[in-house]
Amino acid sequence: MRFAKGHGTGNDFVILPDPDGELPLTPALVAALCDRRRGIGGDGVLRVVRSAAHPDAAALAGAAEWFMDYWNADGSYAEMCGNGVRVFARYLTDTALVPEDSEIAVATRAGIVHVSIGAEITATMPTPRVYAESYATVGDRRFVGAAVDVGNPHLVCAVDEPTLQSLDLSVLPGVDREVFPAGVNVEFAAAGDPPAGADLYRRMRVSERGSGETLSCGTAACAVAAIALEHHSLDSGAVVVDVHGGRLTVRLEQGECRLTGPAVVVAHGNVNPQAVRALHPDRVKGGTPS
Amino acid sequence: MRFAKGHGTGNDFVILPDPDGELPLTPALVAALCDRRRGIGGDGVLRVVRSAAHPDAAALAGAAEWFMDYWNADGSYAEMCGNGVRVFARYLTDTALVPEDSEIAVATRAGIVHVSIGAEITATMPTPRVYAESYATVGDRRFVGAAVDVGNPHLVCAVDEPTLQSLDLSVLPGVDREVFPAGVNVEFAAAGDPPAGADLYRRMRVSERGSGETLSCGTAACAVAAIALEHHSLDSGAVVVDVHGGRLTVRLEQGECRLTGPAVVVAHGNVNPQAVRALHPDRVKGGTPS
Repeated sequence: MRFAKGHGTGNDFVILPDPDGELPLTPALVAALCDRRRGIGGDGVLRVVRSAAHPDAAALAGAAEWFMDYWNADGSYAEMCGNGVRVFARYLTDTALVPEDSEIAVATRAGIVHVSIGAEITATMPTPRVYAESYATVGDRRFVGAAVDVGNPHLVCAVDEPTLQSLDLSVLPGVDREVFPAGVNVEFAAAGDPPAGADLYRRMRVSERGSGETLSCGTAACAVAAIALEHHSLDSGAVVVDVHGGRLTVRLEQGECRLTGPAVVVAHGNVNPQAVRALHPDRVKGGTPS
Repeated sequence: MRFAKGHGTGNDFVILPDPDGELPLTPALVAALCDRRRGIGGDGVLRVVRSAAHPDAAALAGAAEWFMDYWNADGSYAEMCGNGVRVFARYLTDTALVPEDSEIAVATRAGIVHVSIGAEITATMPTPRVYAESYATVGDRRFVGAAVDVGNPHLVCAVDEPTLQSLDLSVLPGVDREVFPAGVNVEFAAAGDPPAGADLYRRMRVSERGSGETLSCGTAACAVAAIALEHHSLDSGAVVVDVHGGRLTVRLEQGECRLTGPAVVVAHGNVNPQAVRALHPDRVKGGTPS
């Protein structure tokens, strides 16, 4: 089975080229491929399939030739991923499935995403919607924050730089379960001087629900940018957001949200699905390291 | 740059075929390749090089055709790795560099290792030497244990099964720094019924110095086996040791220690060293997730 591996700001994916939708992909195989020690390792799988060849995307085939069939590392489906769609687009140009420096439409389970491919890659994202005030707790510290919907729920807490660096995010922050019954991704963001070309700057750390602190989260950057603009009473602008995994730029304009950042495919190869699944025991109960 | 990826009981490696010793391998490139999100990902790199082609192994070239040039994930050298040498041997047979079902000698920085290759792979290991009594603490619990030297330091604590499963090893156990000035790998082992063909059985969890709890550790299994045999006043025997990552068998006989376990190569491909190193920033200070 052919594969590639790539990442966008540290969010990494196993890419499976499958233009005709013929791979027998199962949740168990996805989980085995994403296993970082016994498989290839990744935050998820991006299957590269022609929209016309997949029932979930056939209706979009007229608008987008390629469908990003995205799976989470645990084998569940996901609708969209801002870092994933950049890596997906990079794979398409690296393998000459689409021309370099082009603008393309990519079909996803969340609909059509417009992608602009260059040295960096820009993708349209759901427009952030600020809808409530809430709070997060880290240890015995409590932070006021704003709830933001970016297709998924976020809580953005403004902090100063020393606080940002001192936070222990090795455990999930406490949140108000009445506001966030399904949990929430929590962002802590410190303001700084914007680099040339940007209106605002934020340094961000993010704790994703179910995952804990991660190197990067595209929708989190969009939520942080929306709150930064609101804080300055701006309804549009470019916000540079630095995350552990690198630098993202969010542009909000006329109700549209675009996320720009790097994406790279680092390896191409062949993986043996039998070998990946053969040695997948876990005989010892009790806390299993990941 | 060609690569393969494989693992033995969950201990995984980036394998770099380099028969003539021509790869410009640097600590920074090793660390980037082992980065689980921005590279290939692994606990270390196994460079496959002819002994005659490497200054560290040229003197062993008459006894062993292949040298396992082993690097830790942080770019430092290591002398030997019991799980690594099995994966190394599997790679040699998978790529027809040595015949299947053969017995070979592998050159390492710890000298010659004898390897027997079949469905599972057996490698000679340093003979464990029990040398002191000490203790480990986990939370507010204190466990008596035995210090064992297997080329590297181990502390083996016998526990019952419920205790084994209940231990929180998310932080390193406390140890006596006067006995272990350079730190120690701590094993907790519970006895059980031996499967057919084995004399004794242990279920083990291991916290490696510098790494925390891991899926598997070959020398740790040897240390646990030595203590199990001593506990039964045996000076030889076969001990099955189950770890998170699978099943290992340790045979101690006439002062020789042999470790048997599975090993598999799951993927082969080409990796772009420039791409791996290009996007390796880490701009945000403070706790960085791994």
